[in-house]
Amino acid sequence: MLGVCYYPEHWSRDVWADDAARMFAMGIRYVRIGEFAWSRLEPRPGEMHLGWLREALDVLGAAGLKVVLGTPTATPPKWLIDQHPDILPVDEKGAVRGFGSRRHTSFSAPVWLEQSRRIVEILAREFGLHPAIAGWQTDNEYGCHSTVLSYGPHDLAAFRLWLERRYGSIAALNEAWGNVFWSMELNAFSEVSLPCGAVTETNPAARLDFWRFSSDQVAAYDLMQIEIIRAHAPGRFITHNFMGFFHEFDHFKLGENLDFASWDSYPLGFVERFPFSEAERRRWAETSHPDVAPLHHDLYRGVGRGRFWVMEQQPGPVNWAPWNPIPRPGQIRLFTFEALAHGAEVVSYFRWRQASFAQEQMHAGLNLPDNSGLSPGGQEATQVGAELARLGPLPASAKADVALVFDYASSWMTRIQPQGQDFNYSELTFRWYEAARRLGLDVDIVPPGASLSGYKLVLVPSLLHVSDAAAAAFAAAAGDVLWGPRSGSKTRDFSIAASLPPGPLQELVPVRVLEVASLRPGLSLGVEGEVSGAVERWREHVVAADPADIRARFADGQAALVSKGNRHYLAGWPDAALVKSLLAAMAAKAGLGTLTLPDDVRIRHRGPWGFAFNYGTQDFTLPVDESRILLGSRNLPPSGVTVWQR
Amino acid sequence: MLGVCYYPEHWSRDVWADDAARMFAMGIRYVRIGEFAWSRLEPRPGEMHLGWLREALDVLGAAGLKVVLGTPTATPPKWLIDQHPDILPVDEKGAVRGFGSRRHTSFSAPVWLEQSRRIVEILAREFGLHPAIAGWQTDNEYGCHSTVLSYGPHDLAAFRLWLERRYGSIAALNEAWGNVFWSMELNAFSEVSLPCGAVTETNPAARLDFWRFSSDQVAAYDLMQIEIIRAHAPGRFITHNFMGFFHEFDHFKLGENLDFASWDSYPLGFVERFPFSEAERRRWAETSHPDVAPLHHDLYRGVGRGRFWVMEQQPGPVNWAPWNPIPRPGQIRLFTFEALAHGAEVVSYFRWRQASFAQEQMHAGLNLPDNSGLSPGGQEATQVGAELARLGPLPASAKADVALVFDYASSWMTRIQPQGQDFNYSELTFRWYEAARRLGLDVDIVPPGASLSGYKLVLVPSLLHVSDAAAAAFAAAAGDVLWGPRSGSKTRDFSIAASLPPGPLQELVPVRVLEVASLRPGLSLGVEGEVSGAVERWREHVVAADPADIRARFADGQAALVSKGNRHYLAGWPDAALVKSLLAAMAAKAGLGTLTLPDDVRIRHRGPWGFAFNYGTQDFTLPVDESRILLGSRNLPPSGVTVWQR
Amino acid sequence: MLGVCYYPEHWSRDVWADDAARMFAMGIRYVRIGEFAWSRLEPRPGEMHLGWLREALDVLGAAGLKVVLGTPTATPPKWLIDQHPDILPVDEKGAVRGFGSRRHTSFSAPVWLEQSRRIVEILAREFGLHPAIAGWQTDNEYGCHSTVLSYGPHDLAAFRLWLERRYGSIAALNEAWGNVFWSMELNAFSEVSLPCGAVTETNPAARLDFWRFSSDQVAAYDLMQIEIIRAHAPGRFITHNFMGFFHEFDHFKLGENLDFASWDSYPLGFVERFPFSEAERRRWAETSHPDVAPLHHDLYRGVGRGRFWVMEQQPGPVNWAPWNPIPRPGQIRLFTFEALAHGAEVVSYFRWRQASFAQEQMHAGLNLPDNSGLSPGGQEATQVGAELARLGPLPASAKADVALVFDYASSWMTRIQPQGQDFNYSELTFRWYEAARRLGLDVDIVPPGASLSGYKLVLVPSLLHVSDAAAAAFAAAAGDVLWGPRSGSKTRDFSIAASLPPGPLQELVPVRVLEVASLRPGLSLGVEGEVSGAVERWREHVVAADPADIRARFADGQAALVSKGNRHYLAGWPDAALVKSLLAAMAAKAGLGTLTLPDDVRIRHRGPWGFAFNYGTQDFTLPVDESRILLGSRNLPPSGVTVWQR
Repeated sequence: MLGVCYYPEHWSRDVWADDAARMFAMGIRYVRIGEFAWSRLEPRPGEMHLGWLREALDVLGAAGLKVVLGTPTATPPKWLIDQHPDILPVDEKGAVRGFGSRRHTSFSAPVWLEQSRRIVEILAREFGLHPAIAGWQTDNEYGCHSTVLSYGPHDLAAFRLWLERRYGSIAALNEAWGNVFWSMELNAFSEVSLPCGAVTETNPAARLDFWRFSSDQVAAYDLMQIEIIRAHAPGRFITHNFMGFFHEFDHFKLGENLDFASWDSYPLGFVERFPFSEAERRRWAETSHPDVAPLHHDLYRGVGRGRFWVMEQQPGPVNWAPWNPIPRPGQIRLFTFEALAHGAEVVSYFRWRQASFAQEQMHAGLNLPDNSGLSPGGQEATQVGAELARLGPLPASAKADVALVFDYASSWMTRIQPQGQDFNYSELTFRWYEAARRLGLDVDIVPPGASLSGYKLVLVPSLLHVSDAAAAAFAAAAGDVLWGPRSGSKTRDFSIAASLPPGPLQELVPVRVLEVASLRPGLSLGVEGEVSGAVERWREHVVAADPADIRARFADGQAALVSKGNRHYLAGWPDAALVKSLLAAMAAKAGLGTLTLPDDVRIRHRGPWGFAFNYGTQDFTLPVDESRILLGSRNLPPSGVTVWQR
Repeated sequence: MLGVCYYPEHWSRDVWADDAARMFAMGIRYVRIGEFAWSRLEPRPGEMHLGWLREALDVLGAAGLKVVLGTPTATPPKWLIDQHPDILPVDEKGAVRGFGSRRHTSFSAPVWLEQSRRIVEILAREFGLHPAIAGWQTDNEYGCHSTVLSYGPHDLAAFRLWLERRYGSIAALNEAWGNVFWSMELNAFSEVSLPCGAVTETNPAARLDFWRFSSDQVAAYDLMQIEIIRAHAPGRFITHNFMGFFHEFDHFKLGENLDFASWDSYPLGFVERFPFSEAERRRWAETSHPDVAPLHHDLYRGVGRGRFWVMEQQPGPVNWAPWNPIPRPGQIRLFTFEALAHGAEVVSYFRWRQASFAQEQMHAGLNLPDNSGLSPGGQEATQVGAELARLGPLPASAKADVALVFDYASSWMTRIQPQGQDFNYSELTFRWYEAARRLGLDVDIVPPGASLSGYKLVLVPSLLHVSDAAAAAFAAAAGDVLWGPRSGSKTRDFSIAASLPPGPLQELVPVRVLEVASLRPGLSLGVEGEVSGAVERWREHVVAADPADIRARFADGQAALVSKGNRHYLAGWPDAALVKSLLAAMAAKAGLGTLTLPDDVRIRHRGPWGFAFNYGTQDFTLPVDESRILLGSRNLPPSGVTVWQR
Repeated sequence: MLGVCYYPEHWSRDVWADDAARMFAMGIRYVRIGEFAWSRLEPRPGEMHLGWLREALDVLGAAGLKVVLGTPTATPPKWLIDQHPDILPVDEKGAVRGFGSRRHTSFSAPVWLEQSRRIVEILAREFGLHPAIAGWQTDNEYGCHSTVLSYGPHDLAAFRLWLERRYGSIAALNEAWGNVFWSMELNAFSEVSLPCGAVTETNPAARLDFWRFSSDQVAAYDLMQIEIIRAHAPGRFITHNFMGFFHEFDHFKLGENLDFASWDSYPLGFVERFPFSEAERRRWAETSHPDVAPLHHDLYRGVGRGRFWVMEQQPGPVNWAPWNPIPRPGQIRLFTFEALAHGAEVVSYFRWRQASFAQEQMHAGLNLPDNSGLSPGGQEATQVGAELARLGPLPASAKADVALVFDYASSWMTRIQPQGQDFNYSELTFRWYEAARRLGLDVDIVPPGASLSGYKLVLVPSLLHVSDAAAAAFAAAAGDVLWGPRSGSKTRDFSIAASLPPGPLQELVPVRVLEVASLRPGLSLGVEGEVSGAVERWREHVVAADPADIRARFADGQAALVSKGNRHYLAGWPDAALVKSLLAAMAAKAGLGTLTLPDDVRIRHRGPWGFAFNYGTQDFTLPVDESRILLGSRNLPPSGVTVWQR
């Protein structure tokens, strides 16, 4: 199903009906509106102008479209900020982050919570039962522009309360954080300060708690909106649009309260954001890397407990990356089918028409900014609409054979104490995911502690703190499980695991980590044995309880891969060759069938259907019987899509 | 004519007379003084010590020298700042920029305007009719050290007034800026905040207006000084010394009130400031690039409506660049003749004697700091003085065949929304200028809207907003006109042009820009046709109304160069090969005679005289009859100068 | 002798006795404790808990260990900061640097001085005569995390007083600083502001004075602690643990009040801190560069007037560098013997047991964090303990033949006005030192003004201001003296030397520097003559009074090396080839016997004993008779140590 993001407040009412009719004609069925419209809904304090929105809902509904209504809390208007300047967030250096763009709010400012409740309640009461509304989006892209962590007085007050609830006594906090170190011991919660602005590095346990607190504040804020909406809008779904490569709060936790997850997919812009090499950035500039959008589809399917949308799909060049190329012809169509292949229920383009004004005027839409016609991306979307109509309903997604355990706290912990400057959790997980998909494997992304039953292979690129729940899930897993470096290395309170890393995992793979080395760029260490390649960035000095468990060794003879039955521990950051070798070996152990695909071709299954995508510049011949093909052909051209019945 | 900058307050009175006599003997006729002397003129509030300055004027005048007196407003003394700390400017992060160097003032602080008026009036009254004074310099290097834009409360108050005058109603402002986007709508001018300190990017239209406002404030401040001086110093000229590669305010606008423009020429330091490649920086380290000073001579001749000086000429190594090499022997002489070739009336060296103390002690002068003799640069200046005496008066400059349209607002707009990180307006215009001069062409640099009559070729590397005046001038131009990428892409209010880019230029070249791509380093796209090469950094997806107008195409078949008669639109950022091919083609169309000069040799004409300059390490044989040579010879050695009668 | 740093407050009392016994058994005799324990000594204002410390002293003493007790002033607890927030230092941008790590104090805050006196006096009174205490360490790593220079109101007040004492009148200050430049003249000391936060570069003389003042404040603070300790702890030594590659205060000055110097040696981390090339960083990542630790041993032997300790010796991977590799097996032992070879009296490892919590949990100790056994580094230390026992007492160090003059003020001055971005004083001195040691020479590092008698060769890589005392010492030196670029270029007040550089050195080598050039990377200039190679980064335009004194010339014919008898001036920054050629030539002139060692082998003598160290990956055969060998063998393996009797 297709959707689109629309801003009726940006355009004359005269064009609304025509816009709606053209949307419907293209095959669009969902329209997201309203999420930045506060200044039009309440131009002055208490002066509500809801009529135009009702009219817009009516027009869209009359055209056969279903609306997703966004709460406008990402952009409180200037008069509200001027009345309550303490709503504003504060950066790590103590500077107030002001009005003038969006997300200028602290999740801990009491007056902001009150004002948020007020505006959401007004909208929910007014439009909760409107027939055009299928569901709601809470706020917009929580955390965008680094707004999860705020360092103002309200944040400090809320953090102290959160700590008091967590620890009960200041003595317990001192113990948990190891405050005896450097005389950081406190006598009362009122002595706690925010972990910023110190002469040098602050306590990592304090920083981890501040991150957990901040993540909890986002979830609590979202739940507050959800409860109001549920009270007034029965039967409507609620979702939130998450972002890509963004780890600043725990999405799994927030997702628990939503009906499904959605995310905003800008595959080309992400090529500039993710730490790809310069060569990769050049190679994938106009198509994106073939695992960038898929990784997020799989992640948000997990966050949404099996259900997700793409709420914003890049429709052409965007405005916010350092460089913003035009997607190669066919890529907008490819991105749309790819999202559907990974289980998306709806793919909604951002935005219907390019705005000719303000910050995002260089962001393409499906229509040209002068309304003279469809943009190139709009033409591709039209084609997709027609093709989807021909294909009919898509089958349901099935569980994958491979699970990848993704952990937000590990992302925080490795940022708090990277120990090696390039130990980037996002990169590590991406490279393991990429290696799995290059073998033609489908992957589910799950949080630590989730049941692992049914998976033949479980990948854990790194999981710094292994909770009791996670340990139990690992112990119960029937498939092969592979842990990467630093797994089990920390307690909940950011100390070194009591019996040395990998802590509780020692019961599954009996190894102990005596020392670790971070390796500067250019340094690496060869690995030979059942797998081969090298480690870079990170290596561990591991002692195996039973040397017979050692499956591969470093060039200096120490253990690199240790296995006990179908439990495996890798003592370093694998380079491209090693991760490839490793995933192939693990898939073989797990009895998974694999393919050898070129770098730029990917395959994904949605139940009985197969989908193939070509990110390269050469045709690729698919090993699929022509008679089973539903869309496209065995010959998969550049930027092409093929769909077949398995 | 030669001049020099002199600081009598830095030296014992005992040496003034001897200094003056030695200046005159070298051929120096103008001496600029006084522009940093406030603490000596008014050491304590209201306590004026003007006697020493009068004495200095008398001594210099008696030696036959004419004085340019600078107003000392670039350096208000500490007592004044302590009395009125709100004079200080504020940076984008809200930090006050304090005393301790210079330019510690906001152009919008009322008390600063009042104090400026006071000191200028005192000096103008006292010295307005002094016979040694030929003219005045207002202030010194407006905007140096990023002081055009200030973000304090006085700046905000003045900005609000400026907006109110411009827009009349807040509704008009909301409309112009597109404030409906992200709920940025305001209810009153008193709600306007400065476009800084927001969570993310602020409104580009607001930023453009803030830049226009800031530029206007500089011009208003300068006009205030000019009016005072004109009232008390009849018959004296007034100028200001502008800087190189500095675009933060509109120099053309400020120049309208001056008798002529002057600028401060530091060719070696600029090699480090301009974004040259590392290879170019190494190559040109000791000579400067052969178009760096000339571009500015041509620009400031335009700013000064035909008249300009070099007020400060680098005399040896300077102190302020990341690296400060010694100019190659002969270069100081070369720079001097080059300025004259481009029409300079006076070339004034900075400074007479190297100071042995304070911030600029590592900046060379014509004399060694211990006063033991001339520096190497001083010896070259002496040679120039003798050569100029032999040559006699120089002929007047003639209008060039080529005009290059330079637009400060385009520099601002591309900095506000570059869309591609390396879309640098300064670089783009420099490369077009360089390509023209490598063909031996003389170039005038003019503002948009200036009459283009008489020019055979008009180059517009980029002009984002084409005003009605600019459009009319283009329409009236008889010669060939070539526009570069992004021309006509924006309205006055920083929106996308109503009928898509190139907006009003569509009437001259019927094309429409549907999409644009910024290209990361390493990406480029070939161009073939009447011109050939490639584009890098930027390419546009252009549709020509008549495909027959397409003169060159990109490798993917789309239009790269479109011409309608002698009107030409280039849809991308040309690489070195393309800009060379393009300028050669345009010059041929325009019927201009061109030369094929080596990279390091340049020619410039001043009326009937030709001048040649060699920035390389090899001799070059000029295609000039030996009998016509006035200075030097047909064989132009490294760092050499030849002058001939055409 | 071996030592170790121990934190009884981090561990249960149950383990103290066992820890102490194991220390003694390893050969450890000194234990440093207490320097971060304030919050345990005084958990609440005035509530002293000294019993545990006494108990720890008793336990350690009973085991035969001698204690170095650190004053805990590097980490005042939170309650003290909350009571007196004006203790906190302020950064250059005016931001208060808060609690949360360590060194959160300004050396000029009166209440901080008072509180420091109070806690030191309490400890000195209580433990001054404790029999287990051999000596005291004042504070910890003064200046760590850039805490020498603080920019708050207390710092300003103290700076004004310091200036008033130095200059007497504001007129004298104006004259000394050259404040007439840019109207910076002041009317009273109360008008002085801190040299920060200005629009552009502040006065270099003001910055130099602020640095001198800040350095003096550190020394005065230290002397305050020393006087208290001396009053209560007769017969105990007092030292301070300095850092590596850290120049922010004058260590020689502070050292004058200590019984001996000590320093904290982290050879691997320093490879990332010092500006080595990337290739060098990769090469030396796991061993360190072979001159990094030795340079500091020789420096601190000078600071300690012949006596020094290593107070903290890296025992394995650390936590604070961008990358933290594991030292190659054998390196911990090598580092220990190397320190002893350079004259260290004690080498004390940091720390006994790795902490499993807080900021430094990834910093290795001699014991694993779970107390399950010695770490790899701990095993090497055990081996050293046994070997030292076998070797018996080490002979005393003798004076070296070569002195290198090291000047903290030159480091400050070149940072204040580098003139060329890469003119790094630390790098320059390191490269000269390295070249000397590659010839097998022992080097003493001395301050300017120290007697140079007895040295055959004196190296002065650069000495910007040559004081009267330094000039006298040079004049009296019997050996060869070689000065590098910029020597003698400045007066005490940061002006250019009156008769041009090299100022007072002109009496020893009659040259004058007319101009200087800083050269960007990639630019260099060949040198030929009695020495050969090239200069990079910096070259001077020097005129020799007698051209016959010119020993080598630049490619452009100017003088590069000028010698008058055994006095030599080098007019540039030598590249690797030139510094090698230069040191060989100077050693030959001075009649010193030299060796040709591979890059990765070093030799050092301690009286009649020779020591050799191999930082490479190949064996090296020493030119030493096997019969004289005391430890190791003629064949020196990678990371190996050999000791012999000369």
